[in-house]
Amino acid sequence: MITAAEIKWIKSLSQKKFRDSEGMFVVEGEKMVQEALKSGFEVERVYRKEEIGEAAMARISALSSPSPVLAVVRIPDSRMVVPGDGLYLALDGIRDPGNLGTILRIADWFGIDAVYASEDTVELYNPKVVQATMGAIFRVPFYTAHITSLCSSYPGPVYGTFLDGENMYSKELSSKGIIVIGNEANGISKETAAVVTDRLYIPPFPADDPGSESLNAAVATAVTVAEFRRRSL
Amino acid sequence: MITAAEIKWIKSLSQKKFRDSEGMFVVEGEKMVQEALKSGFEVERVYRKEEIGEAAMARISALSSPSPVLAVVRIPDSRMVVPGDGLYLALDGIRDPGNLGTILRIADWFGIDAVYASEDTVELYNPKVVQATMGAIFRVPFYTAHITSLCSSYPGPVYGTFLDGENMYSKELSSKGIIVIGNEANGISKETAAVVTDRLYIPPFPADDPGSESLNAAVATAVTVAEFRRRSL
Repeated sequence: MITAAEIKWIKSLSQKKFRDSEGMFVVEGEKMVQEALKSGFEVERVYRKEEIGEAAMARISALSSPSPVLAVVRIPDSRMVVPGDGLYLALDGIRDPGNLGTILRIADWFGIDAVYASEDTVELYNPKVVQATMGAIFRVPFYTAHITSLCSSYPGPVYGTFLDGENMYSKELSSKGIIVIGNEANGISKETAAVVTDRLYIPPFPADDPGSESLNAAVATAVTVAEFRRRSL
Repeated sequence: MITAAEIKWIKSLSQKKFRDSEGMFVVEGEKMVQEALKSGFEVERVYRKEEIGEAAMARISALSSPSPVLAVVRIPDSRMVVPGDGLYLALDGIRDPGNLGTILRIADWFGIDAVYASEDTVELYNPKVVQATMGAIFRVPFYTAHITSLCSSYPGPVYGTFLDGENMYSKELSSKGIIVIGNEANGISKETAAVVTDRLYIPPFPADDPGSESLNAAVATAVTVAEFRRRSL
């Protein structure tokens, strides 16, 4: 059973202000709910279609075809850990929920130690981001931070990709550092670019003819991170 | 000026059946329209906000914030060219418009000679695909084909990524071949897998712990294609 008040409460969590005030977010789908349950996250309640009925499920679901199961999960109260002896991503204004979700999934696959996001990056607990992470949200440490300060106080190399950067394949790449990922439309901001120590470029093919003007932000992240990890394999 | 009948006609092109019967598709935005005009595509007509008015623009646009310019473009009548002495992609059931658009953009950046898509891949002229290509649609040769037949009659290597494939970084990769990209949820179909000659795997980091169960289809495409091209740089 589910009450009308409970339906209303769950639906309210599709809005950031209620996620903030309640400290809860929603995950949907069998696999996502299983991932939540086996993670360190606190799962407040699980709703199954066979228990609450199809009509109620359709009302609480944010998906066009409601999944058989939905969970309300507590937003962890995580204290920021500053970057140290690992490989990190710093997101400088990623706005598209699908891109943020995909970047978390990339970070998970390639064992990124933590992801730091600027204040103007789309919120992690936005339902579209949550679903696009395919569970990576439960595994990759994620912090909102002032990217420029974070990078400028970091003792190691700070990498970023730029159209006028150096060919990534002919550069030395450290297995420890921060890789800055720029905004979809404008790339890395001027302020953040000033604290990047190593400007990289993903060469197109043929090397002198990119065709496109740029790669999608998540795609550029993947190609860059894969290259860092290839060097350490 | 724009007539009511013209508005209706343009709006109808958001549906595949009308794109098919009219042989036209829609592109939006200053950059996309410029790319169309300088491409070999036949631009039927260009509509600008300052000419037809903001209200009419809002009606014909498929975007939530209508762009200042929209063009109706003729779908090219392209005869399929079979893969030969280059590097090609074969898409085995890509369903998400954003993924198809992103894959075209990757193909453009990395100079892929042509993209072949199975019948069950999302249609190229779907407005969401068109916009996601960021103009690559005007530059990358694209054909719908029976992927399995195409690959089985191809004399060179046919690559595909599989969770039980061989580490891509320790394999020889030819600069000529077809790379098969699988469906988002199910990967490469059984039928197509049977004609793959070289099974690849993108190693996670650390090598024995992928975290995620998989990478997004467009991300896997990018990492794979980048590695093929890196070898030729």
